Amino acid sequence: MLEPVKVGILGLGTVGGGTVHILQQNAEEITRRAGRGITVTHAGAKEINQTHPFRTDNIVLAQLTEVVNDPEVQIVVELLGGTTIARDLTLQAIANGKHIVTANKALIAKHGNEIFAAAQKQGVIVAFEASVGGGIPIIKAIREGLAANKIKWLAGIINGTSNFILTEMRDQGREFTDVLAEAQQLGYAERDPTFDVEGIDAAHKLTILASISFGIPLQFDKAYTEGISKLTAEDVHYAEELGYRIKCLGIAKRTETGIELRVHPTFVPKTHLLANVEGVMNAVLVQSDMLGQSLYYGAGAGALPTGSAIVADLVDVVRSLTTDPGNRVPHLAFQADALSDFPILPITEVESAYYLRLTALDKVGVLAQVTTILSQNGISIEAIRQHEPQGGASSVSIVLLTHKVLEQQINQAITAIEQLEGIAGKVMRIRLEMLTK
Amino acid sequence: MLEPVKVGILGLGTVGGGTVHILQQNAEEITRRAGRGITVTHAGAKEINQTHPFRTDNIVLAQLTEVVNDPEVQIVVELLGGTTIARDLTLQAIANGKHIVTANKALIAKHGNEIFAAAQKQGVIVAFEASVGGGIPIIKAIREGLAANKIKWLAGIINGTSNFILTEMRDQGREFTDVLAEAQQLGYAERDPTFDVEGIDAAHKLTILASISFGIPLQFDKAYTEGISKLTAEDVHYAEELGYRIKCLGIAKRTETGIELRVHPTFVPKTHLLANVEGVMNAVLVQSDMLGQSLYYGAGAGALPTGSAIVADLVDVVRSLTTDPGNRVPHLAFQADALSDFPILPITEVESAYYLRLTALDKVGVLAQVTTILSQNGISIEAIRQHEPQGGASSVSIVLLTHKVLEQQINQAITAIEQLEGIAGKVMRIRLEMLTK
Repeated sequence: MLEPVKVGILGLGTVGGGTVHILQQNAEEITRRAGRGITVTHAGAKEINQTHPFRTDNIVLAQLTEVVNDPEVQIVVELLGGTTIARDLTLQAIANGKHIVTANKALIAKHGNEIFAAAQKQGVIVAFEASVGGGIPIIKAIREGLAANKIKWLAGIINGTSNFILTEMRDQGREFTDVLAEAQQLGYAERDPTFDVEGIDAAHKLTILASISFGIPLQFDKAYTEGISKLTAEDVHYAEELGYRIKCLGIAKRTETGIELRVHPTFVPKTHLLANVEGVMNAVLVQSDMLGQSLYYGAGAGALPTGSAIVADLVDVVRSLTTDPGNRVPHLAFQADALSDFPILPITEVESAYYLRLTALDKVGVLAQVTTILSQNGISIEAIRQHEPQGGASSVSIVLLTHKVLEQQINQAITAIEQLEGIAGKVMRIRLEMLTK
Repeated sequence: MLEPVKVGILGLGTVGGGTVHILQQNAEEITRRAGRGITVTHAGAKEINQTHPFRTDNIVLAQLTEVVNDPEVQIVVELLGGTTIARDLTLQAIANGKHIVTANKALIAKHGNEIFAAAQKQGVIVAFEASVGGGIPIIKAIREGLAANKIKWLAGIINGTSNFILTEMRDQGREFTDVLAEAQQLGYAERDPTFDVEGIDAAHKLTILASISFGIPLQFDKAYTEGISKLTAEDVHYAEELGYRIKCLGIAKRTETGIELRVHPTFVPKTHLLANVEGVMNAVLVQSDMLGQSLYYGAGAGALPTGSAIVADLVDVVRSLTTDPGNRVPHLAFQADALSDFPILPITEVESAYYLRLTALDKVGVLAQVTTILSQNGISIEAIRQHEPQGGASSVSIVLLTHKVLEQQINQAITAIEQLEGIAGKVMRIRLEMLTK
């Protein structure tokens, strides 16, 4: 049997720990699969703490640059996060001829085009299964498993923190800020939760999924991003009443005129499989022309699930060490010289159905005015409900579901509705997707 | 760009037609991914019909043996079905140095060990993604995506015909034979439905999944197989009442003493994702040590979904044409010399919870006798319901859920219960799985 492959890890956090644990704990199973061992020989950190649990006789603790420059290291696992030092070290490791395995979605979404170009020049692989959906082999499924298909759209629950918060809001009837505080205590949300709850993390992942689905370059800056922080317990409740559930979805869709790339809270029919993905779990639904719908579900975060994807990538890279670099699975699923310049659509050109919630002062005629405005903007109504004031309140909640309409039309209608004398405050609007075909 | 790879197809049925259609329809997308074209140049059948739709200027229609012997053909796609001619031609193609792509689950489950050994000797690939779960990339997910994991168990809805029948029985309250007749009319069931409704097809697929999950040789003859043909509308109804749904599952599980390999109708909690896989759809749930639960869902049959998996395999094989044969993904996920002889357990040694339905003549004391027998056999009761006779019938249905117990214990108890004077006919028993961990 060949010698074990030598791996250097950048970053000594929980995912690094999980990766080392898996390689040790399942060494026998992994070797039986890969045909040779995989060993972490070097680990690097910004500050080396000699009492860190990584310190075993077999792992050399070193400066980050030492790891990427060490001639012994064949594969570098980048687990630093962020897009500055991580980018520099990744490019340096590539320049040194090392293969890369990374869990860094921000790095790939923002600098992937540059990194893949450098990797191709050097004939090395950059593997990034762990960057989307934690341990779910979703990159592999789309890039290889669906290779026969033209992908039409995909919709994913790809941020566990948001999904946990939405699940709790629904189950317990609680408000966003309340559940967020609990999620922070449980370690499901960061102290600064912006990346998770404002949809940025999901947009990084969606950018990657869209590229490998449609064969387009990574274009994170064109993704539309809307988080869950403005949702209220009231909206969650009305969704249930109407037969829906609110999920924060990343949606990428091929249309006649371009590609939709959007993250936002979404009404999903209650009986849909995606509506039943609960807590911190992730799932991606893919609609493709030959297979039809397929769905991939599992743990989207955590040291061991993420480590599972990293180790799977390591096994893939190990198998490719002796192969013809020109004949590997392309980084973005399509050959680098065959990427398409099909445009990403601005959100104003995206078509969607909507849930609208208006607060009407209890005045005669306001409902007629609202429906007139919708009609004038070419928006037809699927359902409408009026919720009577409770406990002597003088305002009424009006809840509407619309048929499909262009974003710019709903925007115009909402602006007009908010100017009505009988309407108090802002109109709440949430997109609605049936996800059937 | 390299010349297109030349493919010969054996069998001119619907899946063959689907495969040719996909390769033509999505030629551009496939070439952008694979880096070169993939073309069907030859097609073989037992009887060549010159008016067959395959007859284009570009596809040579030939005898089966001509296709596998033609020096131009690089990859043979075997779509004949069966295990006699298909086996001979597959082995002959391998001997001729050709790679194989097959959708033939029976062939792999029964003769896979022999076929893979021959392929390894010749340095060729036998790809069989289409043999399980239609177009769902489940072989790839387990074999490559979960390579870091020790797989604990998997449970799959892997026969669409059975799942369609069970869905209809539940939705419409209809009886098995009634729905089967409809499924046959719709083309969801064969004229001889034995393979589908008696669990044999699912057992072929489960045998394959177990091998790639646990690293054991294919052992179809040791699979326990029980179909859905004895289920009644009454059982389907009681399942719902108790908060469960009946699904025909293939279950493979690693225990301390051996591997369980069993196909049977199963009570599954109603809110479980697997319980909500409806109609002809397939899904496989995998419990592994590092990732935890992951699920893969999609179309399990049909010309285009199956063709989707065949073409994905073709792309994989094309990428491997220039690679080191020693460094490929092993056929059964684990290196051929690293397969384990961990035994398959006989069904009597399998532990499971049970649903039991007894028909009691309306006699005093029969319930006490039944619970005494269960207790004597070490079986504790989770729930018990008695359904009063309707319309003047004198017999009562008693429905029981038990805790986990060895199969041989429940068998003994059932034998004793059936001998009671107050019990009419046979005891209906269905296994129950929570599928939580």
